[in-house]
Amino acid sequence: MKPVSWQQVKITGSFWANWQKINQVSLYHQYRQLKKTGRIDAFRLNRGAGKKILPHHFWDSDVAKWVEATALSLWQNFDRGLAEKLEKTVKLIVSAQQKDGYLNTHFTVVEPEKRFTNLRDSHELYCAGHLIEAAVAHWLATGKTLFLKAACRYADYLCQVFGPRKGQIRGYDGHEEIELALVKLFRVTGCQRYLSLASFFVEERGKKPHFFDWEARNRGEDLTTLRRSYQYYQAHCPVRQQREVVGHAVRAMYLYCALADLALEKKDKSLLRTLRLLWEDLITKKIYVTGGIGSTREGEAFGQAYELPNDTAYCETCAACGLVFWSHRLLHLEKKAKIADIMELVLYNAALAGISLEGKTFFYVNPLWSGGNHHRQSWYDCACCPSNISRVISSVGQYAYSSSEKDIWVHLYMESKAELHLADSQVILTVKTDYPFDGKVFIKVEPGKICDFTLFLRIPGWCRSWKLFLNGEEKVLPVSSGYLRIKRTWKNGDYLQLVLEMKTEYLQAHPEVRFDIGQVALRRGPLIYCLEQVDNKVSLHRIILPARPELKASFRPELLGGITVLTGKAYYLTAANLSGWLYREAEAFSLQPIKITAIPYYAWDNRKAGQMTVWVRRQEN
Amino acid sequence: MKPVSWQQVKITGSFWANWQKINQVSLYHQYRQLKKTGRIDAFRLNRGAGKKILPHHFWDSDVAKWVEATALSLWQNFDRGLAEKLEKTVKLIVSAQQKDGYLNTHFTVVEPEKRFTNLRDSHELYCAGHLIEAAVAHWLATGKTLFLKAACRYADYLCQVFGPRKGQIRGYDGHEEIELALVKLFRVTGCQRYLSLASFFVEERGKKPHFFDWEARNRGEDLTTLRRSYQYYQAHCPVRQQREVVGHAVRAMYLYCALADLALEKKDKSLLRTLRLLWEDLITKKIYVTGGIGSTREGEAFGQAYELPNDTAYCETCAACGLVFWSHRLLHLEKKAKIADIMELVLYNAALAGISLEGKTFFYVNPLWSGGNHHRQSWYDCACCPSNISRVISSVGQYAYSSSEKDIWVHLYMESKAELHLADSQVILTVKTDYPFDGKVFIKVEPGKICDFTLFLRIPGWCRSWKLFLNGEEKVLPVSSGYLRIKRTWKNGDYLQLVLEMKTEYLQAHPEVRFDIGQVALRRGPLIYCLEQVDNKVSLHRIILPARPELKASFRPELLGGITVLTGKAYYLTAANLSGWLYREAEAFSLQPIKITAIPYYAWDNRKAGQMTVWVRRQEN
Repeated sequence: MKPVSWQQVKITGSFWANWQKINQVSLYHQYRQLKKTGRIDAFRLNRGAGKKILPHHFWDSDVAKWVEATALSLWQNFDRGLAEKLEKTVKLIVSAQQKDGYLNTHFTVVEPEKRFTNLRDSHELYCAGHLIEAAVAHWLATGKTLFLKAACRYADYLCQVFGPRKGQIRGYDGHEEIELALVKLFRVTGCQRYLSLASFFVEERGKKPHFFDWEARNRGEDLTTLRRSYQYYQAHCPVRQQREVVGHAVRAMYLYCALADLALEKKDKSLLRTLRLLWEDLITKKIYVTGGIGSTREGEAFGQAYELPNDTAYCETCAACGLVFWSHRLLHLEKKAKIADIMELVLYNAALAGISLEGKTFFYVNPLWSGGNHHRQSWYDCACCPSNISRVISSVGQYAYSSSEKDIWVHLYMESKAELHLADSQVILTVKTDYPFDGKVFIKVEPGKICDFTLFLRIPGWCRSWKLFLNGEEKVLPVSSGYLRIKRTWKNGDYLQLVLEMKTEYLQAHPEVRFDIGQVALRRGPLIYCLEQVDNKVSLHRIILPARPELKASFRPELLGGITVLTGKAYYLTAANLSGWLYREAEAFSLQPIKITAIPYYAWDNRKAGQMTVWVRRQEN
Repeated sequence: MKPVSWQQVKITGSFWANWQKINQVSLYHQYRQLKKTGRIDAFRLNRGAGKKILPHHFWDSDVAKWVEATALSLWQNFDRGLAEKLEKTVKLIVSAQQKDGYLNTHFTVVEPEKRFTNLRDSHELYCAGHLIEAAVAHWLATGKTLFLKAACRYADYLCQVFGPRKGQIRGYDGHEEIELALVKLFRVTGCQRYLSLASFFVEERGKKPHFFDWEARNRGEDLTTLRRSYQYYQAHCPVRQQREVVGHAVRAMYLYCALADLALEKKDKSLLRTLRLLWEDLITKKIYVTGGIGSTREGEAFGQAYELPNDTAYCETCAACGLVFWSHRLLHLEKKAKIADIMELVLYNAALAGISLEGKTFFYVNPLWSGGNHHRQSWYDCACCPSNISRVISSVGQYAYSSSEKDIWVHLYMESKAELHLADSQVILTVKTDYPFDGKVFIKVEPGKICDFTLFLRIPGWCRSWKLFLNGEEKVLPVSSGYLRIKRTWKNGDYLQLVLEMKTEYLQAHPEVRFDIGQVALRRGPLIYCLEQVDNKVSLHRIILPARPELKASFRPELLGGITVLTGKAYYLTAANLSGWLYREAEAFSLQPIKITAIPYYAWDNRKAGQMTVWVRRQEN
């Protein structure tokens, strides 16, 4: 099973077409912010002597991610204005490259003497990684080689500087990213040394004696001043010995992406075993019901097992994007729909909540409960999230399909047209659907010529009942690893109708999650729902759902860009006399019937401010 | 109704005698810490030039509070070793006084040029207040005038420096304390100017134009750099206009103490109205079930109404001590047992939890839920709490009684002997009781000569049923404002037996407290209980109490210094298959019967570390 390129999938309408339009507005907005804050002009290399030192030495990555997201977006929806900004920016970036290939505005201008002296904290290779990813996307989208060549020169330079040989730095970056980027560069160039360097960085990580100590001693620093534990950097032990997802969630995701890339490229079963343990730890102990990860603000990190508070949930948007990337990679190693379930969950909920429906404000932090004071911002000093969610939306089609010589997989259902390459044929799949609000999916299959292959359609984990019609006729077919398997001789004109039953469900958390006990979350299809005070004008924590879901789903085209809302009966916890006391001998409260409305979690905080909750109390059976 | 002095009450046995022994050990421990950290030697005034600047400019207050607590303790239980340390320390403190009366080690030695230039942040008058309180206690306990005279010289100097006249500073301290101390000094000296200065400080607070702004401009500071809102200092509006308890909880308590003192001394009804509104806001919206106050770490402050999270509860020990002080004062203005209910609640729960059963470790922060990582420390950089709880324990007897010309009140029941002064007689009350574990109270009344007066015995708010026996005969007598009223002609040999029924109750929180919904707290008598993992070897949040309390109370003399534990049946939330999933479609969990044990909240974290919770889930009726 091989991933398809984002270039093979065109979003043609419905949900994601709408989001790609929003994303285009967002890319303009992000450009204005990058410009206004000096991030783009930093590549003019004139912010040195006498000028104020700029707040983040990882500004380059913000620009690089915008370039990548914009290149991806233009491929989907060409826009002259954006294309001009893109080309101007790319030229400016490349102009900042040094003779030796080095490309980093901060360490070229502000602290040139510190180049590669503090990999632990400087984000130097993190920035390099994003530049490389941007260059690859730019080349694929435009065919222009200027940026890709610069990226190769930079990567070649890195291949000289880093490595196990004498005179080379035997280390790795505190913020992973370079590893996955080098694999990407290897895949488009075929240059083995990039793959080797990625592998080197991964294998060095966490070895003793510890590189970060060596490096700190070289800087003359006192080792006792280390602010973070090595867990924070996933550098507490060699990567192959790691068994639990720990530390900074975004860093962890980028590392695991590289592990999956290397496991695939090198058919490395030991790495795959590590990945399986990490994945299991994540999805059974450290992920929110929205797919959000990284529960604690302290170190933007994973908490302990089951430590998943809703109000203080950190759930950085970038971590959600990172989990989309990782699950997409792991899916191709494992070929199991269960992994695509997580990818889908994160995409439609934790990740998508990161951007507003106007595209001009963003969440960095995505709690599952809000008192009404948490809002998307138009920008951040640490502005990693906006361009990250844009990268995901621009290229969302790539997550929907995979193919091999004789098989095609459909993982996600979105209105799109995909060109898939089998061993000796090109198959065009045209999908029509109102997913994620409706479970009916129409798929037209055009193999060009008559052709044998197997089409695998994912039956989502949330779906309890489905029907498949082939050319109008119902078929009962086997499901393996979560995919309906349709093996036949295909011809142009064949079509499929998959009907996935979308029921509203109550989800419960494992009882070890103390924050969710006695409560349920609402799920319909791939969407997790929430209550907002603007729809439910009471204290949300006093709402009690009936023991079994009695909620009606109805599509409201005028609301929040068109969403399916859930409405129904619930109860409101109250008492005859609620004034003048704070504690009293326990009495039964009364339950006053009320009507409630739930909206998809991704759409919250797009209207009047107020409380929001994902988890809602429920009557005991 | 007038308060009694701590000198009129001798603790004679049982619960508080035990705590006063612990407290003595604690005072030795605290002295060692004060010595070790340089706080005492700072009064040698040799920490200036060339020496490291010490971390807190309010160190003096730590020493002063230890002096006060030790003087109080020695009155109760003389100890030669402590007495020697006390006298040495007092002499050292007085030796640091400047010719003009000023007495502050930091601003005499480290930053002499900054004297009284930053009242907002410097704690200068806060330290002065604690020195004055210490001096008053030292004089009362020992009859020695050295320290009291020094305190008067300092107060006289303050009366010159501060005030409304030209050349005086028209301001007030960022951390209230001086106000209540000046009233105390006025009460022992009769010097009206101390009362006037206290009143001046109170009335200036929060007036516009704002003193803190004026002061900051004088320092050449940018007003936009103010880290805190004026609410933090209770200086957002004139004190008489304040309606809600806001800001730093300890500061608030000390201010309200002064308001109560001034309302009493000046028979000021407008101040009393203010106090009533503040009290009402506190007890109906901002206090924990343990009596803890100040819910947020940010600014050590009160949160919004009903914002009472259990795991992140701040509940500083000093704030609890402050609430004991305030409620004691307000009780004498209001003469209502409801106020003594709060005083008792705080004393036995939020305050007493601040010190370990060995007396050598202390909580600064008192959460109502712990994951097992929150422990008492032997000292703190900001070490305000240890000596504060010691002050309370040393002088706890004073909270039990009040008297007027013809009335005696018993607010709290503790094994003690009290000498109470009526208009023309001295009455000795001798109380025997195993309170707070048992509700039987024996009171011997010795008026010396035959004498008419009314004895008021508080019927605690938690008590639903009681009996009173006078000289062995049951009496049914009226209760007014929460006090049983026994008016008669008393003679030596009279005795009372009060039997307060102590049942274990479930308490519920107002439904607006989202953190407590569906849960109950256990109360028996004045004690709030908690579950600790050492007694209940399961995840505490998965315990479900039966709909009605089925708990047996039994005294365990060997456990935690002798406590009554609650044991009984409960359920444990579980399911057939709990591995491999984190979220699933909601099913009924099963309830496995278990036995649970609860201990008084004050005694937690004195054994093996583990989870602790005050609130426990309960089956719906």
